Amino acid sequence: MSESTVLALPIGFRAAAVKAGIKPSGGLDLAVLVSDRDCSAAGTFTTNRVAAAPVHWDRSILPSAEIRGVVINAGNANAATGQKGLDNARATAAGAAAVLGCRTEQVLVASTGVIGHQLPMPRVEAGLRAALDAANSDQASFHEASLAIMTTDTRPKVVSLRKEVGGRTITLLGLAKGAAMIGPNMATMLGFLLTDAKVAPEALGGMLRYAVEDSFNCISVEGHMSTNDTVLALANGASGVEDFETLSGMIEEACATLARMIPEDGEGATHLITIDVEGASTPEDARAIAKAVADSPLVKTAIHGADPNWGRIVSAAGYAGVPFEEADLSLWLNGVPLYKDGAPLPFDDAATSASLRANREAHIRLVLNHGPAAVRFWTCDLTAEYIRLNADYTT
Amino acid sequence: MSESTVLALPIGFRAAAVKAGIKPSGGLDLAVLVSDRDCSAAGTFTTNRVAAAPVHWDRSILPSAEIRGVVINAGNANAATGQKGLDNARATAAGAAAVLGCRTEQVLVASTGVIGHQLPMPRVEAGLRAALDAANSDQASFHEASLAIMTTDTRPKVVSLRKEVGGRTITLLGLAKGAAMIGPNMATMLGFLLTDAKVAPEALGGMLRYAVEDSFNCISVEGHMSTNDTVLALANGASGVEDFETLSGMIEEACATLARMIPEDGEGATHLITIDVEGASTPEDARAIAKAVADSPLVKTAIHGADPNWGRIVSAAGYAGVPFEEADLSLWLNGVPLYKDGAPLPFDDAATSASLRANREAHIRLVLNHGPAAVRFWTCDLTAEYIRLNADYTT
Repeated sequence: MSESTVLALPIGFRAAAVKAGIKPSGGLDLAVLVSDRDCSAAGTFTTNRVAAAPVHWDRSILPSAEIRGVVINAGNANAATGQKGLDNARATAAGAAAVLGCRTEQVLVASTGVIGHQLPMPRVEAGLRAALDAANSDQASFHEASLAIMTTDTRPKVVSLRKEVGGRTITLLGLAKGAAMIGPNMATMLGFLLTDAKVAPEALGGMLRYAVEDSFNCISVEGHMSTNDTVLALANGASGVEDFETLSGMIEEACATLARMIPEDGEGATHLITIDVEGASTPEDARAIAKAVADSPLVKTAIHGADPNWGRIVSAAGYAGVPFEEADLSLWLNGVPLYKDGAPLPFDDAATSASLRANREAHIRLVLNHGPAAVRFWTCDLTAEYIRLNADYTT
Repeated sequence: MSESTVLALPIGFRAAAVKAGIKPSGGLDLAVLVSDRDCSAAGTFTTNRVAAAPVHWDRSILPSAEIRGVVINAGNANAATGQKGLDNARATAAGAAAVLGCRTEQVLVASTGVIGHQLPMPRVEAGLRAALDAANSDQASFHEASLAIMTTDTRPKVVSLRKEVGGRTITLLGLAKGAAMIGPNMATMLGFLLTDAKVAPEALGGMLRYAVEDSFNCISVEGHMSTNDTVLALANGASGVEDFETLSGMIEEACATLARMIPEDGEGATHLITIDVEGASTPEDARAIAKAVADSPLVKTAIHGADPNWGRIVSAAGYAGVPFEEADLSLWLNGVPLYKDGAPLPFDDAATSASLRANREAHIRLVLNHGPAAVRFWTCDLTAEYIRLNADYTT
């Protein structure tokens, strides 16, 4: 999303971003997304036992039919911060509620950044007041919000969808961030879906959980599940259009588009890797195999090196915890069959390597003969640049 | 083990290594370990569903009271090679049996190297005949065997133990290899324990499984479980000494010593990381948490960068699948308390970073308040050198 991209924006939402002084870089680090009227809202969150304070706060107030907005900060995760962290998450919501003229329980919060540090509350409170004062429904404001939620992302992640329903229009805007600490269920990824569709909070929650299952829960960068993963959906009904099928399809499309952007922008990545697992007994089996392959540093480095060392792929499938016999398994890499029913096939090493080298996208296809279940999973390769970025992130 | 190290060697075993032409480098790549008389033998193996052909072969003949030796090759894993691979593993055993004058089922085999290629059988067969002809009970022969089983290891891994029992002596020699594709249950690690103690195969198997549980199953390099993991124990009884307690203690000590050498020699590693998890309800819980922390690229890169970014450690503990509340968890890094009962503690960032930088060993201690179970786990950090080594291993 460059500043010149024109986005379709949902009616009745405003956004703003400020430099609150939370990121050491001094960049934009606090964003607000607010609705002029109450929203139906739902969320999905990390399953990490060490869940961040904002996750605890949002869980405690969702689903809700009265949400007015979200305050998001980058640069500090407010995770592993004990009772004081919980108090600070609530105080952030309270600070925004005071400006918006609503109850504290009508404001969601989300954080991303370093774990284990308390939020600098005077800066957060000053920042959120400045942001709420500046909140605007123009393009630039949403663009700045998409930048303010970034940490090591190299680019903002935005999707905008518009659908006609019986001559009227539903618009959905999605923003996300995430480039590392990305393992399914879910990533330090934050995602925000804003729509002017009309929908009950419980129905919205159902649509969101369904969409997240096949999108944000099917990506990884290095498989480290974050404390802060959050996807929030806010529907303010301003379009007056209530259409379950349409909205549900838009949410699925937005989640799939945003999710794929994350490993595409994975820290230091040179390849986006799509992993299709087919012929499994259950979707859970298919996903377990895909995740084992996606999270293997040996698979990731082989793809990075354009090395068709396919034994690393089938051996990762073999330790996923899914029972199968070798003769049940076949493998294709970038369309080339390498392993068929448990036995290796002759193939052109040099050509397969050249295909990996020439394309930024790599495709792994693993097929079992167990049943009808399939999953598509996305990850990225592992490079020396990832090591460099992560060997000195806080210091 | 340098050539000048004098090892205590068990009575009645001989060894040899040759350059069979399996490794592209042309180095030593085939070793034999043989006993002059029948051995009790037991093994533990990978739980990978894509198990290598030698694993299938060894499993089919163990436990046994009549094992005469082991043929080990490096440079080719004979894994994911289908029926032809199984035939080749058996043919390797048959070739050795013909020279030794025993049945095929009295010879074990082990392989390590690239997955998915058929063994070059004429070279393997010529090599094993040359090795068996040369097999000798001297120091140099065992030293060469320890070199021949290496792949990306930078040094051989050998332990030698001798214990007195009622005026008589038991000797145990252990050899191992492994530097990557190391995840518990187990690694592409191969381990061989040779002893002149007297013991029944079933008892030996019990001792070995117990010892492996707390050693080779408590290490990882990058968490990728190999297709070829094998630990074999051969006891030929030549000392005439039968003492369960003593032998069992020696096997435990040998396994612990060899296991720790593997992450110490992890590909590209600059830190050996010891992870103690205490206060868990069960050993399985403790190990699950230790493994999640050990396999997190974000934890590994933080240690590499001497970055006390401890949030990565507690967040990895949080996704291990073990239920706990944040207030149940405390963390120490290199002896410094960082997180106590779910809340961060003030600490000296610079001093903790300096301690990580100054020491090749790092110590992570995670304490729950759930119960008495504890585990000690070893891993290594993740460096750009690991990426370099693995981005072009086969090509």
